[in-house]
Amino acid sequence: MTPTIRTTEAGEHLGERVRLRGWLHATRSLGGITFLVLRDGWGTIQLTIESEEGLRPLHEAGAMVESVIEAEGLLRAEPRAPGGFELVQVTLGVISPVTSPVPVSINKTRLTAQQATLLNHAPLTLRPPARRAIFKLSALTMAGFRQTLQGEGFTEVQTPKIVASATESGANVFEIDYFGQRAFLAQSPQFYKQTMVGIFERVFEVGPVFRAEPHATPRHINEYVSLDVEMGFIENHFTVMAMLREVLAGIMAHLEIHAQQALEILKITLPEVPRQIPHLHFEQARVLLAEIQGGPVLEEPDLSPSEERLLGKWAQQEHGSAFVFVTGYPMCKRPFYTHPQPEAPQWSNSFDLLFRGTELVTGGQRLHRPEDYHQALEQAGLPRTPFASYLEAFECGMPPHGGFAIGLERFVMQLVQAPNLRLTTLFPRDKARLTP
Amino acid sequence: MTPTIRTTEAGEHLGERVRLRGWLHATRSLGGITFLVLRDGWGTIQLTIESEEGLRPLHEAGAMVESVIEAEGLLRAEPRAPGGFELVQVTLGVISPVTSPVPVSINKTRLTAQQATLLNHAPLTLRPPARRAIFKLSALTMAGFRQTLQGEGFTEVQTPKIVASATESGANVFEIDYFGQRAFLAQSPQFYKQTMVGIFERVFEVGPVFRAEPHATPRHINEYVSLDVEMGFIENHFTVMAMLREVLAGIMAHLEIHAQQALEILKITLPEVPRQIPHLHFEQARVLLAEIQGGPVLEEPDLSPSEERLLGKWAQQEHGSAFVFVTGYPMCKRPFYTHPQPEAPQWSNSFDLLFRGTELVTGGQRLHRPEDYHQALEQAGLPRTPFASYLEAFECGMPPHGGFAIGLERFVMQLVQAPNLRLTTLFPRDKARLTP
Repeated sequence: MTPTIRTTEAGEHLGERVRLRGWLHATRSLGGITFLVLRDGWGTIQLTIESEEGLRPLHEAGAMVESVIEAEGLLRAEPRAPGGFELVQVTLGVISPVTSPVPVSINKTRLTAQQATLLNHAPLTLRPPARRAIFKLSALTMAGFRQTLQGEGFTEVQTPKIVASATESGANVFEIDYFGQRAFLAQSPQFYKQTMVGIFERVFEVGPVFRAEPHATPRHINEYVSLDVEMGFIENHFTVMAMLREVLAGIMAHLEIHAQQALEILKITLPEVPRQIPHLHFEQARVLLAEIQGGPVLEEPDLSPSEERLLGKWAQQEHGSAFVFVTGYPMCKRPFYTHPQPEAPQWSNSFDLLFRGTELVTGGQRLHRPEDYHQALEQAGLPRTPFASYLEAFECGMPPHGGFAIGLERFVMQLVQAPNLRLTTLFPRDKARLTP
Repeated sequence: MTPTIRTTEAGEHLGERVRLRGWLHATRSLGGITFLVLRDGWGTIQLTIESEEGLRPLHEAGAMVESVIEAEGLLRAEPRAPGGFELVQVTLGVISPVTSPVPVSINKTRLTAQQATLLNHAPLTLRPPARRAIFKLSALTMAGFRQTLQGEGFTEVQTPKIVASATESGANVFEIDYFGQRAFLAQSPQFYKQTMVGIFERVFEVGPVFRAEPHATPRHINEYVSLDVEMGFIENHFTVMAMLREVLAGIMAHLEIHAQQALEILKITLPEVPRQIPHLHFEQARVLLAEIQGGPVLEEPDLSPSEERLLGKWAQQEHGSAFVFVTGYPMCKRPFYTHPQPEAPQWSNSFDLLFRGTELVTGGQRLHRPEDYHQALEQAGLPRTPFASYLEAFECGMPPHGGFAIGLERFVMQLVQAPNLRLTTLFPRDKARLTP
């Protein structure tokens, strides 16, 4: 019996008769010969049809591009064919015909459709190799993230997304009707991952988070995948930053091994993760920005996107690093559970990691003493009652701990240098978009 | 410098001085000697303190059980100690003291607290080895699931949880205020995972699903983790069932290798996954149930929980299998996208997998021709417009495909034979419970 193979297995079956199944990606005729491209879930392959007769099954079914087909034939090397192989002496079959033209042309090397068209027709426009390679990178990023952390003794958790009170603040939270009660969609697994340090010391989670931010920017969407990490028995935020460095290096190593095809299709090279990622304290960053800009920097407690870009350029030029840490952000800009810098408590033991000049990761050391939480809630003007379960973790003994969160789509956006986060999200959600 | 080790690394450091850090799990005095149990994120170890003087750091800090401590000392084998090791010549330090008794005693071998108490105080009651072993099994189940599917060429996806319309039906869906629009929490990734077959052929997802079922049973909660799979180019539902068998076998093999400690703590053995899981068509199941019960079976289009238990017993007795498939459920009880049995269209190409007499997995072949969808929606009295994006996937060419979904907490519940799904869920959500 003829074996059924994947397009990516062609090299192992040269000179053999095989069967391939997939989508009719493209057709092209040249001097009486027709070249079809069959695309399956892994790659593409050229089918060379030497006579009109060979195309009859397609004609009879009225099968146009994106029809689901099968092809039996002889596999041989053909240096002029994309990928280096072709199927000849082909017998075609139509499994599921598409008899009207598809709404967007997806078989050019570069998709020329507008972003809105790409997103509106995602069930179709995610299919071509250059689009799906992006989501292959997403999948492999998650795999590299998990593998690195499992190797460091972390346990995976899944925490609830329906919560009784907002995590970080009362703003930007989606409200749910929960059997007649008010409930909310979790803005992050923050409270739960900290709680889980009391159980497993080291935990991670990969899951959706929900932010009801009404503004539309190319770097924000309202539902995204957060790669969350939390660990106990740290010295301070630098212990956490060292772990983040290992995680990033682990992801890159995983992509290096498993994502070669996607990287080639997208024509990108992976950034190197330096053994020591450069870091600047917030105060130093401001001095540096004043120098670079040749004038005083506004007295803001945060960095603007353009300042982040300047720091990204500086790290690349001075340290050859696509990554740079900014540490010590003013306490007033960080959430109430942030641990202050012990010797200068207006600053925090927190950090952001910029990747190519854009904020990619936020993290830091958290408070761990119950009395510090009581004080922090009081200072933030928050009542203790809604936080009772969270506080119980600290009242029952918690070590110094901290963690971080990486936005998956943001990471891939920066990796492939996409102009908009919506292009590295399978089915993005923003104020104007709830479908597909 | 004294190395800091995990409790589970003790065997590699016998005869050495080491430092351990963790929680003061228990204390016991016997003839002037005090035995402390230190619990870290991985296990426990006995600290043997031969004098009152050695306990002074605890006394001075007023440190009670669950205090975070460190201990330096000499590691040696001690067959009488739980785990077979003890730390002697101990110097104690208190990292974070707990100075009031914790609200629930968690240091007995069996927790005697009521279920409600366990759930109310989860940040504490998840800590003891017998509770956290359950969630170690959850983590390893996810890992085994992913590893098996990656080996079979599946790509991981993350699809949106905020959706514009209900997936399976209009009932049992949580409503969200989405910037003033009505939106819903996804009841399953069904539509998206089918759509993704058009992109990657084989996909899986691990993520939360939300069911607004108002009834409270020991086997239902309102948010759970679904292990979802979908694959293209199947023959029929039996292709999907064969893949499910591989996934179950892969999970068990992964647990066998990585979960020994958890399995020992919980005193459970893994069920064998037979090479061929027994299966019964729904019609056969009814005949069999009539025989077993010695009388006619009610003409219902579904099986009751007690009927499922009887079939589970039958599979164990007749086939030595903890698993049994029931196939061909009446079309009227399956969702509109279900593929009928070609030669007898009142039945469906669908299945349930029962594990120890409880439904664990639902799956089947889906429709793939657009005209079949148009007809199915019409028969179900549903308009096409809300399904426009979903239908686009089929209009743009889709192969025969199918898949399944495993409930993670349900799987672990049946594995450890817990009496209630809430005990195998970290922070369960039901009509009466939104915290912790």
